[in-house]
Amino acid sequence: MNDALNGGKVRKGYVRALDIKNGRVDMSHGSGGRAMAQLIEELFTDAFDNDYLRQGNDGALLPQASGRLVMATDSHVVSPLFFPGGDIGCLSVHGTINDVAVMGARPLYLSASFILEEGFPLADLERIVMSMALSAKNAGVHIVTGDTKVVEQGKGDGVFITTTGVGVVPDGVHLSGDRARAGDRILVSGTLGDHGMAIMAQRESLGFSSAIVSDTAALHGLVAALLDSGADIHVLRDPTRGGLATTLNEIAAQSGVGMMLDERAIPINPEVASACEFLGLDPLYVANEGKLVAIVAAADAERALAAMREHPLGAQAAIVGTVQEDAHHFVQMTTGFGGRRIVDWLSGEQLPRIC
Amino acid sequence: MNDALNGGKVRKGYVRALDIKNGRVDMSHGSGGRAMAQLIEELFTDAFDNDYLRQGNDGALLPQASGRLVMATDSHVVSPLFFPGGDIGCLSVHGTINDVAVMGARPLYLSASFILEEGFPLADLERIVMSMALSAKNAGVHIVTGDTKVVEQGKGDGVFITTTGVGVVPDGVHLSGDRARAGDRILVSGTLGDHGMAIMAQRESLGFSSAIVSDTAALHGLVAALLDSGADIHVLRDPTRGGLATTLNEIAAQSGVGMMLDERAIPINPEVASACEFLGLDPLYVANEGKLVAIVAAADAERALAAMREHPLGAQAAIVGTVQEDAHHFVQMTTGFGGRRIVDWLSGEQLPRIC
Repeated sequence: MNDALNGGKVRKGYVRALDIKNGRVDMSHGSGGRAMAQLIEELFTDAFDNDYLRQGNDGALLPQASGRLVMATDSHVVSPLFFPGGDIGCLSVHGTINDVAVMGARPLYLSASFILEEGFPLADLERIVMSMALSAKNAGVHIVTGDTKVVEQGKGDGVFITTTGVGVVPDGVHLSGDRARAGDRILVSGTLGDHGMAIMAQRESLGFSSAIVSDTAALHGLVAALLDSGADIHVLRDPTRGGLATTLNEIAAQSGVGMMLDERAIPINPEVASACEFLGLDPLYVANEGKLVAIVAAADAERALAAMREHPLGAQAAIVGTVQEDAHHFVQMTTGFGGRRIVDWLSGEQLPRIC
Repeated sequence: MNDALNGGKVRKGYVRALDIKNGRVDMSHGSGGRAMAQLIEELFTDAFDNDYLRQGNDGALLPQASGRLVMATDSHVVSPLFFPGGDIGCLSVHGTINDVAVMGARPLYLSASFILEEGFPLADLERIVMSMALSAKNAGVHIVTGDTKVVEQGKGDGVFITTTGVGVVPDGVHLSGDRARAGDRILVSGTLGDHGMAIMAQRESLGFSSAIVSDTAALHGLVAALLDSGADIHVLRDPTRGGLATTLNEIAAQSGVGMMLDERAIPINPEVASACEFLGLDPLYVANEGKLVAIVAAADAERALAAMREHPLGAQAAIVGTVQEDAHHFVQMTTGFGGRRIVDWLSGEQLPRIC
């Protein structure tokens, strides 16, 4: 596969490397032929560097897994592709790792599938792939198999990345959205809305918001710390699209409970709060990509909070509310002024293509 | 999640079903909010109907798997979305099942992630989802988790579907592209080029080619029959993008061998041969979506052939060539006229967006 082509001309025995600096994706990179083989070999296989991927077969052969499996998938269509604090590459790794982790599983393997738009600069693709590789490496997760498709200019948007994660749940761990019980405490691992507002600030060119950086991060370490604390954790979620409000409404519906939040306890960066006010957005509905929501038995809430705060990704963790009985499954909030309001499902679309 | 909204207006306690007949995908269907929950509930969860998906969490919790795992992924961007013999829905299920199956694995679970273009008719989406559901059911595979994203009109092309499959390899099965040995026989399970030419005929509106139908099918039953025959199988592949020629070149490179094909032995439907001639295409490079290539120890070739032919998907199976020593790893062919030619890698792009 190290024989190379350029401009569609194959010359046996003549090897020319991909011109990553000036080259662009063309339709031949999705053909299944030599150009695709070269792209995969020089860009993906080298960056993701592991023996599973190097098997070079249609799928990856992996060891037997010792425990219940978890499988999660996410397509990433974030726009812009590069934003303060990250890019679509690391986001696509973190996002799926987090979906696996909040099931209580240790993430092991990722697949990565790319839909590239004709004309997309190879230099940008390389930057994205390197970001994925670094995130996966830091998380101790292997990208074991993948796919590349190319669509004509105007039929895609640069690059879309779909990742699927497989992990293993340790014995004794039972987390699910239907396990919240009246009396449980609601914890968040840090400030809310950072990711969504980092994207929005970039899109809207908000000058004053340069301090807003995406929180994109892999949460499996924080999850492990929380489980290791011995606290009785009932539900974990990462509040991505739709933010904390949507995540809590989902859990309330699944568990058949209501919730009462305390607005004053919810950590929000002042810059994010200002930007939200400026754009008329509610930070409770803004996406996070490195935050955890935990529903914990009341007696163990402080222990869980301490475990979160000891972890670098949970330094600003807080207890933000309580699960309560409610036949309507409402999520409500005591506001800073002492009133109450319903924190409803997000309706319509607040922030398109945030992840 | 059964509370509904329409046109972005939420009314508590008022449930209106999705207008699948006349409705279209809008940005709110990717928001993470109520519209997305409704789309998932009414369209996807009902169609894919299984307990794993109904867990309603960020990922699916699955039983422990008893054996080595296989993981494979494919993004599907085929155009047109509907074609003679299939559609992007069944194709996305078959394609990934086949990638898992050719590793010798029994496919168990699929994830499915959708990138929808704003304005895409919900009726078409439903048709695609029902096709996926039926294919998965027929194959005995569960679609256990998924994701839905929406991009603005002009930033996608109707629908892209990425599926990832997980399967388990029985003990004693060892298939890999690097296991072809000089002397091995090369088998194909049936006629070549049907899928690619079905798509091309539709695109080019070739009147005479109405008899050409995609061969899209799940191959794991045929693979199991082949393994059960006891024949010493070294490599299995499904020759999709790039066709038989590309698949054999890949195997030749991986195994460090050459190959000699016999053109007269290669089964091709007459209509496909005619259409290829008309369009100036070589059927050896045209995609298949329901065909198997098997590299088998010479002594077991007839046994493997018999096993294939007994299976409905292998009725036209044939032995089409022999693996041979070749330092250049060339795939060659004895032509119908008795000459020889090199069957090189596909260079450039012959048939864009064929799968």
